[in-house]
Amino acid sequence: MHIEKMEELFRQWLQEKNFLAVKKEMSRLPVQDVAEILNHLDAKNSLLAFRLLPKDGAAEVFSYLSDKIRVAFSQMIEEDELKSLVEDLFFDDKIDFLEEMPANVVKKILQTTPESERRLINQFLNYPEDSAGSIMTIEFVDLKADMTVAQALTHIRYTAPKKETIYTCYVIDQERHLLGVVSLKDLVVADPDTRIEDLMDKQVIAVKTHDDREFVSSLFKKYDLLSMPVVDQENRLVGIITIDDVMDVLEAENTEDIQRMGGISPTEESYISQSPFTMAKNRLFWLMALMISATFTGRIIQKFEDFLQNMVILAAFIPMLMDTGGNAGSQSSTMVIRGLALGEIKTRDVFRVVAKEFMVSVIVGLSLAGLNFLRLVVIEQVSTTISLVVSLTLVVTVIMAKIVGGLLPLLAKMVKIDPAIMASPLITTIVDAMALVVYFYIAGLFIKI
Amino acid sequence: MHIEKMEELFRQWLQEKNFLAVKKEMSRLPVQDVAEILNHLDAKNSLLAFRLLPKDGAAEVFSYLSDKIRVAFSQMIEEDELKSLVEDLFFDDKIDFLEEMPANVVKKILQTTPESERRLINQFLNYPEDSAGSIMTIEFVDLKADMTVAQALTHIRYTAPKKETIYTCYVIDQERHLLGVVSLKDLVVADPDTRIEDLMDKQVIAVKTHDDREFVSSLFKKYDLLSMPVVDQENRLVGIITIDDVMDVLEAENTEDIQRMGGISPTEESYISQSPFTMAKNRLFWLMALMISATFTGRIIQKFEDFLQNMVILAAFIPMLMDTGGNAGSQSSTMVIRGLALGEIKTRDVFRVVAKEFMVSVIVGLSLAGLNFLRLVVIEQVSTTISLVVSLTLVVTVIMAKIVGGLLPLLAKMVKIDPAIMASPLITTIVDAMALVVYFYIAGLFIKI
Repeated sequence: MHIEKMEELFRQWLQEKNFLAVKKEMSRLPVQDVAEILNHLDAKNSLLAFRLLPKDGAAEVFSYLSDKIRVAFSQMIEEDELKSLVEDLFFDDKIDFLEEMPANVVKKILQTTPESERRLINQFLNYPEDSAGSIMTIEFVDLKADMTVAQALTHIRYTAPKKETIYTCYVIDQERHLLGVVSLKDLVVADPDTRIEDLMDKQVIAVKTHDDREFVSSLFKKYDLLSMPVVDQENRLVGIITIDDVMDVLEAENTEDIQRMGGISPTEESYISQSPFTMAKNRLFWLMALMISATFTGRIIQKFEDFLQNMVILAAFIPMLMDTGGNAGSQSSTMVIRGLALGEIKTRDVFRVVAKEFMVSVIVGLSLAGLNFLRLVVIEQVSTTISLVVSLTLVVTVIMAKIVGGLLPLLAKMVKIDPAIMASPLITTIVDAMALVVYFYIAGLFIKI
Repeated sequence: MHIEKMEELFRQWLQEKNFLAVKKEMSRLPVQDVAEILNHLDAKNSLLAFRLLPKDGAAEVFSYLSDKIRVAFSQMIEEDELKSLVEDLFFDDKIDFLEEMPANVVKKILQTTPESERRLINQFLNYPEDSAGSIMTIEFVDLKADMTVAQALTHIRYTAPKKETIYTCYVIDQERHLLGVVSLKDLVVADPDTRIEDLMDKQVIAVKTHDDREFVSSLFKKYDLLSMPVVDQENRLVGIITIDDVMDVLEAENTEDIQRMGGISPTEESYISQSPFTMAKNRLFWLMALMISATFTGRIIQKFEDFLQNMVILAAFIPMLMDTGGNAGSQSSTMVIRGLALGEIKTRDVFRVVAKEFMVSVIVGLSLAGLNFLRLVVIEQVSTTISLVVSLTLVVTVIMAKIVGGLLPLLAKMVKIDPAIMASPLITTIVDAMALVVYFYIAGLFIKI
């Protein structure tokens, strides 16, 4: 059944106080669907339904609820209930939750947390946003090198329910230095008497707590990992990152790139939940910056005002030249920005990119100019001179646009600016100015007034 | 060590015929790194190094090689060697490889394949591109409902080496109907005498062979899956999809969206490996279409030619108005396209989107116009009338641009067109025309000639 239909049913049942139906349906549905339904109910009904969940399921559903509804819950329920709920969460979900709660709620929850855990929580809350530390969890299986496979399996069996994953286990020494990894697959297949040190893979792919999460996700993609250890400066294991969180990182990073490329300050809030004021704020900076830059393009026209007054027909082709130049440049910058994000293009490829964009732009520019010349002369019956001026400008503009579009993201990367900024809006503004200068220059060569 | 340094070392060793060093280094490196190095060597050296790999590692490295180098290998090595190599591949890697090989190579390989497998391969090769069937594999663990946990674990232990994943097992009946799933975690924790049917989760999240791979990846994200069963019309299990392939799908779908949004026909080939002609082809269609559309914008200017001739100063503000309108519209379409791709926005949200864009555009439009008016009057010392005309146009354009930008992707989605097409290039062209009409209309109201 469609989830929207389900929401309707839930609303109806809750109104009729048919709690049995709600309870039954929630036990039948996957926790993610239950969370989605609760996210869409009003806070009061949502909490009503949430309280009907069995204790062990509640924490899981809670970890999938939206920030908005969780903040609402934390304001509606008693301190004790909130505390016991938070206790049942996986450690990384707990951190996520505390990060978005108002300071007084966090303080309340931490007050009665044992000293050792409180210290750990504070440590995790302090990892920089977008760092490996900020997405890791501590619920992993650690093994000792001198265990046998049989001992390891017993240990896993005993601790599994509290672990986020048991499929990759981490071998550490007394000081928690990371020695190796061993997969549950290897453990299951191996002879029970084999020692872990003989079975483990010593060549571990690990990250440091302060590594960027984008780097983390690129390693997951490259090495097809299900989880990855995070170590501190002394190579001591402090946590692991699991693939489900990496999937979220991957989407968030893609969203960030796409927003930057659209000339918007990136945000992780969803479209629907953002207020118009936040939205306006995220968009204004670039619009203003680009508006002011575009006035320089206007200056070029002003400079050629007399010329234009005598040849006002030239004005009619300005939009087409500007748009085509902008589009041609954006195509190139889009390709290069994406190539850089995927690691297919490196900064050392700069000459290769310029050479390629040049060749592409010659092919594209000539094709467009040819088509345009024919159209102007045959269909629009514009004079040959003007058709020639416009078409020549088109070729030059497309070539310049594509080289600039290919080059700027690479230059940005070299000076450690996010290449995504060098996308459509900025390229368009730059190329517009260039197109107009070329246009008036070529026109001046061919047309004497 | 950096992978580029490694490549240099490999080249040197191969030239010096120091095969021992190559062999030793390859056994130390992760297979993905070995593949990356081989991808960057010339085909002859690459094959030389490849042949130094142990037989069991060779297939794994092979599955990570680029298409280019694999085609080169298949032309350089003997039929027998190629065949034995292909035999060692996981089934989905085999299909991937056959898909990109020239027909004669495929024929050669299939000739000596046993009838049953050949039929299976042909079936897989026929699944539509971008379908669930095209990314699934057949190397999964299937269990019977009446097995005990102990029997299941023995079965898994015995078959594990040939399976892509053993962490989720699929329970089927005699006719291969999918009855449930059970995770290795549950098996390891459970009492050995428990029967699988009592342990398995009957509420299975599965897809059909012809479902879109984008839908598949959205399910993985939502339900935090590691693998997912694929069934035919009769609910018979035909394969599974694993998360490593889904990560690739996710990136490919994001790339596709980004390319569409940049006005490029999407391609899965990397920037570096595309020829300038392919690139030009992928870009020409949109450039031509948009160039022709932009001529309509030119027509608007032509229509107001006389007016413009008398008030040529108006021309100087055209680029700024066009650019700002285009940027404002692209921002909105970018946000809505991404929201739709992530499932945060549904088509039924259309009124909500329009209302939100209207509010945002009023805030943004007024801020920009205010700033612009001040700048024109105070800094540029333009007459109040013209400053007013330009600023008013700015407000109206921004409002229209944002509503059109927010609306078009939703309309596209409703009529089952990819919303990503309604991005920057198209929006810019549409908004440009609108901006000019508004500009001349408002100018006509305020300025009498």
